[in-house]
Amino acid sequence: MTDDNTVTACLLLIGNEILSGRTQDKNLAFIAKGLNDMGIQLRAAHVIPDIRDTIIEHINRARAEFDYVFTTGGIGPTHDDITTECVAEAFGVGLFRDPDTVRLMTERVEARGEEMNEARLRMATFPQGAVLLKNVISVAPGYKMKNVFVMAGVPRIMQAMFGEAKQYLTGGEKVKSRGLAIDLGEGTIADMLAGVQARYRDIDIGSYPQMREGVGFRVSIVLRGTDEDRLERAHADVMQGMRDLGGNPVVEDPEKAQSTAEPEPKSA
Amino acid sequence: MTDDNTVTACLLLIGNEILSGRTQDKNLAFIAKGLNDMGIQLRAAHVIPDIRDTIIEHINRARAEFDYVFTTGGIGPTHDDITTECVAEAFGVGLFRDPDTVRLMTERVEARGEEMNEARLRMATFPQGAVLLKNVISVAPGYKMKNVFVMAGVPRIMQAMFGEAKQYLTGGEKVKSRGLAIDLGEGTIADMLAGVQARYRDIDIGSYPQMREGVGFRVSIVLRGTDEDRLERAHADVMQGMRDLGGNPVVEDPEKAQSTAEPEPKSA
Repeated sequence: MTDDNTVTACLLLIGNEILSGRTQDKNLAFIAKGLNDMGIQLRAAHVIPDIRDTIIEHINRARAEFDYVFTTGGIGPTHDDITTECVAEAFGVGLFRDPDTVRLMTERVEARGEEMNEARLRMATFPQGAVLLKNVISVAPGYKMKNVFVMAGVPRIMQAMFGEAKQYLTGGEKVKSRGLAIDLGEGTIADMLAGVQARYRDIDIGSYPQMREGVGFRVSIVLRGTDEDRLERAHADVMQGMRDLGGNPVVEDPEKAQSTAEPEPKSA
Repeated sequence: MTDDNTVTACLLLIGNEILSGRTQDKNLAFIAKGLNDMGIQLRAAHVIPDIRDTIIEHINRARAEFDYVFTTGGIGPTHDDITTECVAEAFGVGLFRDPDTVRLMTERVEARGEEMNEARLRMATFPQGAVLLKNVISVAPGYKMKNVFVMAGVPRIMQAMFGEAKQYLTGGEKVKSRGLAIDLGEGTIADMLAGVQARYRDIDIGSYPQMREGVGFRVSIVLRGTDEDRLERAHADVMQGMRDLGGNPVVEDPEKAQSTAEPEPKSA
């Protein structure tokens, strides 16, 4: 833990396909929410290409700086899957082939009428010291090396591996959130919000303008913090502040606020 | 330009709401494709929180390492919008208020029956030396400081600012792409793919397994490179290699390959 009871994490999204714009990442939001539910705060996410030195540098920087590091992508059987050799290099260890994984994969491959080969065996090869993370979807496991959790890039598999990873994670104080929506412009509410923020330094207050279908323009306010009492009081203060400004604030689930919304211009 | 005719870029996505999982980023893919069309390669994207020192450090590291840096988020009127003060600090300059922006914003605000205030004036305040990027959506502009382009986080506004930024960008050789889809497993095609990759070091060959509705399991192969002739030849070699393995490869638009696809397990 970095300080007090705060547990932090960093996510490395490894893959050229995200940086070329071809693939829209869906893993960040899933992992962020999953960690938050466990009292772990995702503090940074880096999208990096399939370049050996870049991956190694990021792994080493992140594992020193954060309590936990998660990686997605690059653990398949093809030549562009280089994450495992980079993790081994980052930790200064060699590789080992896991007999149980070889057996499980061979059964699965032969059942499909295909044959086990060197390419597939790469998915049964791990850095020395790795603890495997079971993959209930497609057999070949992810793994953890100390505080670094190495997972697949395909969302369904990543989610299965993340589920397995949870047994090794210890969270700190959970960040809770409260939300509200308001029909006033950001420029109108900014001073009031800053005033509440100044009184509640331990609460993180965010302001997000958006346009919702059938509802029109509005601003969502999200308050986040670990102390539920302080959170409630700050939320009440913002609600009252909105009313004092002539607005009609509505309590809103902060986690759902953005799911169907197309954000709208940060209006003047 | 870093070397030969390669022009690189880095994207900084600034905002707690992305790291909490509340907001699904849509800016990365848009910017990646827009840059690629201009012959600029997005080499890294970092999602970072609204923390002053973190933002400043990332701006300074990125502007030294890449030809261009783009930021999204944190330029609105509320207390959590701190990008501009961080950019000024990163460049070691003060701030100035732009009279034209003040006038335009005041007209717009008063037309809505609201009043100009200090919070709104923050959106007319820029680091000394900034060149403004017009915002046709909601008036308050983005800006560039040397090779750093500062844009809004709301997609529609970001896109308008990115359009304005293009006049200041000089691309290098454009990366082109070719694609194909195949009904064989990744483990079956991996050796052949690695062989083609070894013969075409200048071509980046990626392998992406997926499940498509109504089509079933398949793997998409994407080849990317600047030399069209070499790209065509590598593509033809991969197509032939697939046929030699008993597969039925189909030419596929690499940019569309993922848009409606739900990626499927990286199968053993």
